[in-house]
Amino acid sequence: MRITTVGLDADDTLWHNETIFRLTQDRLRAMLSEFADHETTNARLAEVEKRNLRLYGYGVKGFTLSMIETAMELTQGQPPGRLIADILAAGREMLSEPVEPLPGVDQALAKLSEAGYRLVLITKGDLLHQEQKLAASGLGDLFAAVEIVSEKDASTYTRVFERYGTGAAEAVMCGNSMRSDILPALEAGSWGVYIPYHITWAHEVAEAPADHPRLVELDSISKLPGWLASKA
Amino acid sequence: MRITTVGLDADDTLWHNETIFRLTQDRLRAMLSEFADHETTNARLAEVEKRNLRLYGYGVKGFTLSMIETAMELTQGQPPGRLIADILAAGREMLSEPVEPLPGVDQALAKLSEAGYRLVLITKGDLLHQEQKLAASGLGDLFAAVEIVSEKDASTYTRVFERYGTGAAEAVMCGNSMRSDILPALEAGSWGVYIPYHITWAHEVAEAPADHPRLVELDSISKLPGWLASKA
Repeated sequence: MRITTVGLDADDTLWHNETIFRLTQDRLRAMLSEFADHETTNARLAEVEKRNLRLYGYGVKGFTLSMIETAMELTQGQPPGRLIADILAAGREMLSEPVEPLPGVDQALAKLSEAGYRLVLITKGDLLHQEQKLAASGLGDLFAAVEIVSEKDASTYTRVFERYGTGAAEAVMCGNSMRSDILPALEAGSWGVYIPYHITWAHEVAEAPADHPRLVELDSISKLPGWLASKA
Repeated sequence: MRITTVGLDADDTLWHNETIFRLTQDRLRAMLSEFADHETTNARLAEVEKRNLRLYGYGVKGFTLSMIETAMELTQGQPPGRLIADILAAGREMLSEPVEPLPGVDQALAKLSEAGYRLVLITKGDLLHQEQKLAASGLGDLFAAVEIVSEKDASTYTRVFERYGTGAAEAVMCGNSMRSDILPALEAGSWGVYIPYHITWAHEVAEAPADHPRLVELDSISKLPGWLASKA
């Protein structure tokens, strides 16, 4: 097989993301503990997020708005004292969180880049925030292109690998979301390298196809250069 | 001169935007009228927006968060009844607002497209929302490319006109913001066509350079095809 282009997801593939959402959600549950038990807060937030996804899309700003909406609902419109201000502050902290590449990421990307692969970052989320995270990660120079997209479907991968590579058939997409990174990339005709992160947002969970000829699972991004070399 | 590529701003160039922000800000002032006079609300919101711009970037979601923060400050952390829920609803309404091209836009873009110019949409704001507005406008098919960017500076125009056109020197950028659409495009070596909208967000105001050889002001986008033809 001939692979020229490596697409990489960002959140939870190159750096932690879901952990930060979960920690903030823990804080929200604590802030709301006198109004609702943990399960109720979790369930209500998930409902509000789902309802807003079509309008807000992915990212911290929409998540913050959904946390506020959840708090308003669970406090019957009577949020005490600093509750809303505290949620706003928690959202801002998420946006200022330092970014550190996951173990092995630097070395893996450097090896792929040296081996001549075109690296393309393909990620959802808030435009400005994703750009800032990439800048803070120090990984920016390794990428030939960066595409921040509102949705990851097969047409996204077709378009991006056409524009920045030599087409989807000669590309591999690597990421932690079966639903967003792998299934639509396979549908577009690319290879999919599934690298699970230890937690996954419910919205991103999807069943892996059985025995797909262009799908592989690796337990670490460190194994990606070796896997590509073995396929060349 | 040879022009191959026409860059177009979206908000307040192709469709109304600032009007919707102003109307929502009017609603916020009314909601807060028992806590602060109109000038105080305006001033505080402008302050909060400015402080958050670095983290939130441009767009409705950040504006909604800044409205909530302003409301929390002006109510001393004791927002009455439905205030916060009403602000959230106002933000969602902004995101669902129908999009109608400004007068003359359809015809002007169709003429430019027929005349063989490559049209590139270059806009700031929330990624998903800008994509949705473009889809709702019915103008999407006229554009060879769409770039939603976190900031418009000279390097943005250099990069975009390089990628989608034949370089900044053979491109013209058209928009209503002297600060974001015109000055950085001129700096990149492009032509600038300034088409004022009747109101401008304070952040986007900038002085026009005196007698710049590559800057022209038109009072309507309808005059753009004629101006380009006269320069060909």
